[in-house]
Amino acid sequence: MFKIVTIPGDGIGPEVVASAVQVINALEEKYDLEVSIEEHLFGGASYDVHSEMLTEETLEACKNCDAVLLGAVGGPKWENLPHEKKPEAALLRIRKELGLFANFRPAKVYDALVNASSLKPDILSGTDFMVIRELTGGIYFGQPRGYDDTKGWNTMVYEKYEVERIARLAFETAMKREKRLVCIDKANVLECSQFWRNIVHEVHKDFPDVELTDMYVDNAAMQVVRDPKQFDVIVTKNLFGDILSDISGMITGSLGMLPSASIGKNHALYEPIHGSAPDIAGQNKANPIATIASVAMMFEHSFSMQHVADDIYKAIEKTLESGMRTADIANSDDNIASTTEITDAITANL
Amino acid sequence: MFKIVTIPGDGIGPEVVASAVQVINALEEKYDLEVSIEEHLFGGASYDVHSEMLTEETLEACKNCDAVLLGAVGGPKWENLPHEKKPEAALLRIRKELGLFANFRPAKVYDALVNASSLKPDILSGTDFMVIRELTGGIYFGQPRGYDDTKGWNTMVYEKYEVERIARLAFETAMKREKRLVCIDKANVLECSQFWRNIVHEVHKDFPDVELTDMYVDNAAMQVVRDPKQFDVIVTKNLFGDILSDISGMITGSLGMLPSASIGKNHALYEPIHGSAPDIAGQNKANPIATIASVAMMFEHSFSMQHVADDIYKAIEKTLESGMRTADIANSDDNIASTTEITDAITANL
Ligand SMILES: CC(C)[C@H](C(=O)O)[C@@H](O)C(=O)O
Ligand SMILES: CC(C)[C@H](C(=O)O)[C@@H](O)C(=O)O
Repeated sequence: MFKIVTIPGDGIGPEVVASAVQVINALEEKYDLEVSIEEHLFGGASYDVHSEMLTEETLEACKNCDAVLLGAVGGPKWENLPHEKKPEAALLRIRKELGLFANFRPAKVYDALVNASSLKPDILSGTDFMVIRELTGGIYFGQPRGYDDTKGWNTMVYEKYEVERIARLAFETAMKREKRLVCIDKANVLECSQFWRNIVHEVHKDFPDVELTDMYVDNAAMQVVRDPKQFDVIVTKNLFGDILSDISGMITGSLGMLPSASIGKNHALYEPIHGSAPDIAGQNKANPIATIASVAMMFEHSFSMQHVADDIYKAIEKTLESGMRTADIANSDDNIASTTEITDAITANL
Repeated sequence: MFKIVTIPGDGIGPEVVASAVQVINALEEKYDLEVSIEEHLFGGASYDVHSEMLTEETLEACKNCDAVLLGAVGGPKWENLPHEKKPEAALLRIRKELGLFANFRPAKVYDALVNASSLKPDILSGTDFMVIRELTGGIYFGQPRGYDDTKGWNTMVYEKYEVERIARLAFETAMKREKRLVCIDKANVLECSQFWRNIVHEVHKDFPDVELTDMYVDNAAMQVVRDPKQFDVIVTKNLFGDILSDISGMITGSLGMLPSASIGKNHALYEPIHGSAPDIAGQNKANPIATIASVAMMFEHSFSMQHVADDIYKAIEKTLESGMRTADIANSDDNIASTTEITDAITANL
């Protein structure tokens, strides 16, 4: 019996989460699973009711389940709130409270969509790597921090155990893939990065079969654009991961297609990497594939049911190969499918 | 009378600086200028003689001239020195000592080379923007910093005057171009970025004709890859600028072609953005165009002779249009020109 909490959030969040729930229900039947799904408020949707983006009630629910599925959060309506009330603050808080220290972001190109990218098809095709970003440490959470009239300051800091646990996870991930890990930092300038690098190399001793390479973040950002096929697994700190995982997603040409998993010792949260897209919210236009693929990651990481995950990926691919496209990935001569149409097709292809 | 100090440095540095000097000599004659050129040791070349990458003598020379031209620095030979002896440390020191707080990096696509990029030609063609990176502050120089057995730490800090002066320069640059400035930060997470953003908006009041847009660094990195034509001028802090200026260079497909200018109140340093390329050093294979274009930036910024700068850019373009290519930018069916051949051609085209 799996217990899932959904927090659909704002904008297109509720629509894409509804699609994902439809897929979960179909899987439940197909594989005779028992899944309970409980929905909670989060983000602007929560703020409008409780004057808080993340209530204790939602937080408790997220702590007491096997996996959380998040839709999207934020929108113009809540943009001018004070800093600590904003969607971003709620996101950072949920990551911290659930201890989600590792963010997994696959950068994988769907063959059917290789032309959607700004990169040339021959550079892109075959790209398939995983960016692992540290998510609860570094400059995002370091103290002291603040600003006054004369200056602004933040602290980038990593403790040994924080680097060790993410490094271990990265090596384990590499072991399941092509056994190549690139550690990305700025050790030529930052002592914090030098420390990070040293620890990653220490942990490497436990994974002698993995080839470990160091790369500076400025070079890495270029390499992702120049030759994305060179990567298998990337591990990096919070701030660099924020930038690198976004570039890695962008080059695939399918931001609306990419899932993510944020994993901790006891909890896990899955979400599409796209935003809340308020401009198309409620119009049955959103691409639900990233959220459905997030469910696949959930079955893989949280439920250890790789075959179900594979099943979902295959259903997505089959649907794309049939030529079905939501507006965001359509060419000018494609028929455009709605959120519910493409969800029905994927469900049928399961 | 202009006084230039050259610090050729390592790898291909001496070759590309020699090319630049040949161009300067030709300009001297053509425009009846008086230019003195004094060469000094820097980087590994200096270390091998003085056990120091940057001696007081070289530093003094750089302080007592109108402009410095740097080739490249570093190589495998000096990679295992202790941190404070490394080329990077010398680079950071020279920036700080000369007060070079603003780094200008044009991302401009040469029509003749639009196919060299990993980006599709239609995405890329017409791209022409300037990245202005703060160069003597932020996390590169902030205190406290260090690491011990249990953790590593750095400090990102900006003072008001540091943000003001770079913002002013950025608005001035935008005024000379298309009057569009994008301020890139991470104000949704970092207080230091919020402070930076606030000051940039204050300075904006003095430049009401410039359209100012804020963009988060993760989004900006994606936008440079997705649609580089949207940018005119970018201003950002040291660490984000390191990453963004490199991506911006990479997408043009011509890293070997791009110059840079680092400017302060009283000093200026010009250098190609490429590295020392030890693998092809001393073989007359290096592409000197980035260094020659750096001379153009020198005439523009330090000598206020825009017409001479334009002359250099035109000579470069003419040479490229004639089909001449060094190995790094050649297609498989091109005849490959040597460093000296392409330098001669550019000089002849002046
Ligand atoms: C919204 C913001 C706080 C967040 C981050 O920087 O982590 C986002 O960019 C992300 O990558 O999930
Ligand atoms: C070598 C390194 C210290 C330097 C930097 O990070 O500034 C380099 O990457 C650059 O951009 O000039």
